Amino acid sequence: MTGSHLSMGEGKEFDAIRTLLAQWGPRATGIGDDAAVLDLPPDERLVVSTDACVEGVHFRREWLTTAEIGERAASAALSDLAAMAATPVGLLLAIALPDDLDDDLADLARGVGAAAASARCPIVGGNLTRAATLSLTITVLGTAVAPIGRDGARAGDLVFVTGRMGGPAAALRAWLAGKEPSRADRARFVAPTPRLDEARWLAQRGASAMIDISDGLLADAAHLARASGVSLVLEFARLPCVAGVEPRDAATSGEEYELLVALPNDAVPDPEAFLRTFGVPLTAVGRVVAASATAVQVEDADEQGARGHDHLA
Amino acid sequence: MTGSHLSMGEGKEFDAIRTLLAQWGPRATGIGDDAAVLDLPPDERLVVSTDACVEGVHFRREWLTTAEIGERAASAALSDLAAMAATPVGLLLAIALPDDLDDDLADLARGVGAAAASARCPIVGGNLTRAATLSLTITVLGTAVAPIGRDGARAGDLVFVTGRMGGPAAALRAWLAGKEPSRADRARFVAPTPRLDEARWLAQRGASAMIDISDGLLADAAHLARASGVSLVLEFARLPCVAGVEPRDAATSGEEYELLVALPNDAVPDPEAFLRTFGVPLTAVGRVVAASATAVQVEDADEQGARGHDHLA
Repeated sequence: MTGSHLSMGEGKEFDAIRTLLAQWGPRATGIGDDAAVLDLPPDERLVVSTDACVEGVHFRREWLTTAEIGERAASAALSDLAAMAATPVGLLLAIALPDDLDDDLADLARGVGAAAASARCPIVGGNLTRAATLSLTITVLGTAVAPIGRDGARAGDLVFVTGRMGGPAAALRAWLAGKEPSRADRARFVAPTPRLDEARWLAQRGASAMIDISDGLLADAAHLARASGVSLVLEFARLPCVAGVEPRDAATSGEEYELLVALPNDAVPDPEAFLRTFGVPLTAVGRVVAASATAVQVEDADEQGARGHDHLA
Repeated sequence: MTGSHLSMGEGKEFDAIRTLLAQWGPRATGIGDDAAVLDLPPDERLVVSTDACVEGVHFRREWLTTAEIGERAASAALSDLAAMAATPVGLLLAIALPDDLDDDLADLARGVGAAAASARCPIVGGNLTRAATLSLTITVLGTAVAPIGRDGARAGDLVFVTGRMGGPAAALRAWLAGKEPSRADRARFVAPTPRLDEARWLAQRGASAMIDISDGLLADAAHLARASGVSLVLEFARLPCVAGVEPRDAATSGEEYELLVALPNDAVPDPEAFLRTFGVPLTAVGRVVAASATAVQVEDADEQGARGHDHLA
């Protein structure tokens, strides 16, 4: 079932699928049946997540090109596999397409294809439907011998983040104020990098818990703390921020798609080796303590507790 | 990771997830991490499909109760696993929820849960976001030792359908004419049954190709024919129709979620045994012939070629 596609007949829907396949080339496999068929590596566990990106909720069309909308949605979905230290094995793309965007379908596909290519992830299926507003709902499948959950942090562990925080929030602030964000901030919002290789590197070195930063560092730290039954103590002064952003803003910047990771005290990885390998910093930002009423304490700030982006607020 | 859920913190989004979990009970497993983790039966292949159900495109809110919207969407998605003769192992539910439906979330979940329960399918993950219109994008995972594609039909095979056609189209015609459909027609639209057990029964008896009827019998017969590199000859007089519907209308009725299946001439199953086991008929409706310019020929009708529902028309 993999490697080639089924023959398809006439009709607008099949024409649209052919438009997608033309963009994806060999990146797409086995398209055209009722469902995709995959063979997983033996002795690995299946990791699966679904993620939606909705116009007017997660982005505005005037901020991003159509290709960027596709790339960003796929990268955000793939980031959930990174958060589990899984290796991608398949992506399914459900597109809800307003009719004024019919001519943009190839661009949308190109963006999704770029993210899938970066992650070395085959595109194995999807769905295409009409809708009043554009949305992409992307399901990603991966495998791992030992997936890393957000529930394994233990008191005494140290807490690290990958990359630098604050770019996506800075870009959003600029757009909402009617300004154009800096090139660097815009890139952080538009083209996040799922930290797939970084996650496996950290897993190999004994990571006890991991989460990707989608709701903001403080909020996601609280998710990890609650799930693990511990509390986290963070130090704002240690937070790696992009240029021009204060730690306070960086800590509530959502959709970073960096990793927050706990590692046992005796398994601290070498940040120099991480930087050399991946070109982004790995920074110790706090520690895990026994559970208290406050999931996340910030040692050097007035702020207490966790706040972040709530997708239903 | 299965069996229990991670602890979750405060916030509207987690409250909404708790609303869903309260409806699903033990049907939902391992909710709360970045991704779900599943262990598949060894030596079985993974089958995966994603399917969207959008307000105003696939249904109108005034036609269905909220619970019915959920049940129908999940049943339609699960039908793609039936079409591959796969056994469901997991369902992920992405909900795009308008804010006037916040109070209906429990009903929506109840409907999805009912369909998952009927299919003995765990609910393993999902996504929840705001949107202007209601949509459910459902990903289903299944396994099969030997999935049945739509591409295996060979000249000489016989063609069968499960159940009776025409109900969903009759219900739609009534609603669009401002009338209330008959109870039976409404039930066929509102609560389709994914033919999961039926599909495995047919697979065990040597089915060479299978597809579920979502675009209408004629259109799906054409999909199967194109994919298999053959043509199909159907006889309208043989078509099993619901009461009050002509074969011509039954043949273009979409969203039936019955199966169209090809079986070798020497592996014809016993329709009596099928009816006894599943309570629905299995009817021979045609045969597979060598490929010609026309994917589907109807022997006893003026109609030639295939027409059906095109989701982008």
